[in-house]
Amino acid sequence: MTRVFNFSAGPAALPEPVLRLAAEEMLDWHGSGMSVMEMSHRGKEFIAIHAEAEALLRELLAIPANYKVLFLQGGAIGQNAIVPMNLLRGKTRADYVDTGDWSKKSIKEAGHYCTVNVAASGKGSNFTAIPKQDAWRLDPDAAYVHICSNETIGGVEYHWTPDTGSVPLVADMSSNILSRPIDVSRYGLIYAGAQKNIGPAGLTIVIVRDDLIGQALPITPTAFDYAQQAANDSMLNTPPTYAIYIAGLVFRWIKDQGGLAAIEAHNRRKAAILYDFVDSSDFYTSPIAREDRSLMNVPFKLRDESLDAAFLKGAEARAMKQLKGHRSVGGMRASIYNAMPIEGVEALVAYMKEFEASNG
Amino acid sequence: MTRVFNFSAGPAALPEPVLRLAAEEMLDWHGSGMSVMEMSHRGKEFIAIHAEAEALLRELLAIPANYKVLFLQGGAIGQNAIVPMNLLRGKTRADYVDTGDWSKKSIKEAGHYCTVNVAASGKGSNFTAIPKQDAWRLDPDAAYVHICSNETIGGVEYHWTPDTGSVPLVADMSSNILSRPIDVSRYGLIYAGAQKNIGPAGLTIVIVRDDLIGQALPITPTAFDYAQQAANDSMLNTPPTYAIYIAGLVFRWIKDQGGLAAIEAHNRRKAAILYDFVDSSDFYTSPIAREDRSLMNVPFKLRDESLDAAFLKGAEARAMKQLKGHRSVGGMRASIYNAMPIEGVEALVAYMKEFEASNG
Repeated sequence: MTRVFNFSAGPAALPEPVLRLAAEEMLDWHGSGMSVMEMSHRGKEFIAIHAEAEALLRELLAIPANYKVLFLQGGAIGQNAIVPMNLLRGKTRADYVDTGDWSKKSIKEAGHYCTVNVAASGKGSNFTAIPKQDAWRLDPDAAYVHICSNETIGGVEYHWTPDTGSVPLVADMSSNILSRPIDVSRYGLIYAGAQKNIGPAGLTIVIVRDDLIGQALPITPTAFDYAQQAANDSMLNTPPTYAIYIAGLVFRWIKDQGGLAAIEAHNRRKAAILYDFVDSSDFYTSPIAREDRSLMNVPFKLRDESLDAAFLKGAEARAMKQLKGHRSVGGMRASIYNAMPIEGVEALVAYMKEFEASNG
Repeated sequence: MTRVFNFSAGPAALPEPVLRLAAEEMLDWHGSGMSVMEMSHRGKEFIAIHAEAEALLRELLAIPANYKVLFLQGGAIGQNAIVPMNLLRGKTRADYVDTGDWSKKSIKEAGHYCTVNVAASGKGSNFTAIPKQDAWRLDPDAAYVHICSNETIGGVEYHWTPDTGSVPLVADMSSNILSRPIDVSRYGLIYAGAQKNIGPAGLTIVIVRDDLIGQALPITPTAFDYAQQAANDSMLNTPPTYAIYIAGLVFRWIKDQGGLAAIEAHNRRKAAILYDFVDSSDFYTSPIAREDRSLMNVPFKLRDESLDAAFLKGAEARAMKQLKGHRSVGGMRASIYNAMPIEGVEALVAYMKEFEASNG
């Protein structure tokens, strides 16, 4: 067996110890005689797995007691509808900040439920920078202010937390949750698809301040009503049990690495290796403003894009996968989430140097 | 390692060969160097897994070409909202047949989107029988007629297909899909949560006739718009990739058993062993009308319910799990889905005889 370095933007690489344990426990979890996949979600075994996953997530992110943690389904694209359904609370307008492809999707979907005010846009920089907060035009009557904390495709990331006063801040953190410590109390709601830093696709995590729930629109599907799910410990319907189990193993792994402070330091080292090399090279370029560069998704280009196919072919031959940039951006993208080891980034930079030497 | 006989109503037992293969492939699927959990849903590896799962399901159920197969999220409870959102098609009314707890949930949820006509109800029999079709009062202007083909809690199952004329028949088949051959062309839409006969919780399968989609209500979340998902091969958002992989392995296992005709024969043998014994005993009883008894979920009671706890304790000691009946029904429930081997049912009946002999 040879494992590859998987630079996929998501679903993405998982920690190898997590996969090994999952394989070992597949037919018989802790002497239960069952796979976790086979367990009733109402049985004592799965209830313990679920409770531990939530407790670990609360510990890692230091989630205050007045926040609910929900394990749902439907991904961030589902949440783009479910957030306004739940959070409008009698209001008719919401603020959105447009920083690229993912915030655009959120804006379009929210428009089915409310009037969207685009409070700021990265369009002027062709989405290579996050708009500074002094340029935001916030609506004091907005139900909430929505941001995408890391744009997986464009590669810009907030390295600061917006101040939205008494209006709740909502963040799609799908691609940078658990990559570093955050102050959850600055947010009204955080949501994230699991398939980058958490676990398998199909699990969606929602962290929401409890005073914001309980006023969902009547058209909200019961399975996606935050208050009803909170009242049922996310078991109003059968939760994605196996994905929650894997997420719990990932949370445990993060804790074993030293928690989010240690994870952040590791992520900063990895990103620095890659960005520093790109910046030192005339062969490769990064279009992103330095202060807004994502630590998770690193888009870069070869100045001569006619070499793209050869670059990707050579990477594949060296067991480095999924480096092709998103079709809307072109070039390359290296996604270096928590589970990407430093050796993967070092191998990539070594290959980039080699390729430059052969083709520069 | 000792595997148990797991009679859970869902999530439920999976075929052991499927779990063994999943464990073997966990770190490296087919020499890809990746777990299926880590694969980009846009990569060639996962696209092949997804396509094979769909092809196998189409083959097993003989799904006609004019039906779309969608791999979604949110479970049957999610679909209870998503079905009317998609299928009302400008109409304002829908027919529902009430056969127990699960149809009641569907009825309640549909009421948020349309006027529900309860065309027939099992209430008169205390939900121990499926209402005969000659007693149904169908509305010719209904957008569709909804049934629950197997009531997981109550234990009644349709052993016939309703005739709804030109009004599309919609069936929640969560707990009996793939238990026997069906004529898909008799249905407008079939939906099912995966966690009984298909695979892990978190995957929801929708099979829908293609002329019925494309008129979703404007409030339908894009992730749950059948037409948009169909146009994107269920990849409008990241699908629950690992659950789809496991489902594909289960579909392959069903095919290896001889397909749905062989599975049905096996299921009939298992159910007969259990029902015949209950009927032959004065110690145990089944309240369900013989012609409507579920082959998947077998509720039964001890005439002396003060013995329930002792019965369950003895079952646990013999490695038979999750036999406790649903809290709304009481007594016992043995769920004997496809993956339950005949030995499991034989072991249960042997224990029931032993318990009767000791306590009768």
